[in-house]
Amino acid sequence: MRTFELVSGESLFVNDLRVVRWEQYGLGAELPFQAMWYSVPPGSESPTDQHPELELSIVVAGTAHVLVGGEVREVPQGDAFLLGSEEAHVVQNRSADEVLTVFSAYWYPEAATAAAAVLADRDRPAETVAAGHD
Amino acid sequence: MRTFELVSGESLFVNDLRVVRWEQYGLGAELPFQAMWYSVPPGSESPTDQHPELELSIVVAGTAHVLVGGEVREVPQGDAFLLGSEEAHVVQNRSADEVLTVFSAYWYPEAATAAAAVLADRDRPAETVAAGHD
Repeated sequence: MRTFELVSGESLFVNDLRVVRWEQYGLGAELPFQAMWYSVPPGSESPTDQHPELELSIVVAGTAHVLVGGEVREVPQGDAFLLGSEEAHVVQNRSADEVLTVFSAYWYPEAATAAAAVLADRDRPAETVAAGHD
Repeated sequence: MRTFELVSGESLFVNDLRVVRWEQYGLGAELPFQAMWYSVPPGSESPTDQHPELELSIVVAGTAHVLVGGEVREVPQGDAFLLGSEEAHVVQNRSADEVLTVFSAYWYPEAATAAAAVLADRDRPAETVAAGHD
């Protein structure tokens, strides 16, 4: 088992957002995604971000207000939001005093396709495989 | 964008642990992993679990004490732990009054290998690809 600690992670800053990228842990091909934490100070927001990777975000502290396509969704601590490929998004922290922290995993669409194929293959009943029905 | 709410997720119980499996969201081949939330009541713990999938867990509320191979690691809210394939583990909530909630993503080792190959291919410089160096 390995543990990963937000507070001691090597970070970079994007405006006033603290970003801890998981590349630093050298997990290489152990994870089927890339990952990061980011923290948004009270009253601040992320720059608009848009990228080919899908992104699953888990709110680990505070509450996120996520702006996508002119819509705002409130996502409290413990809940999650999934951004599609190339979906432009802004993540706001509307709290006056609490830091918002998000854990995000992100991956290219074809990585998910490749991983899903592995799972489908695993889940096929053994008899079917044995009978050569694949 | 889709959002996922812990409180309203359809759940099942494993002893006194509430488990919300993400299969219910029908994300199919969009995610390169399977996922769930689970909540451990104060003073309780999970059964020993052991499976071929690697498992990345993010503590979204409370503090986890994770038992692996005779060792105990404390993982507070916001931090993460990664379990290797077939690593037997128990997750305890030692709090007297606070629920422990964990978000877990899990995948077979070969799914990560397949996804990492996609990423490596994406990251290769375009000139190298154009020159046929693959």
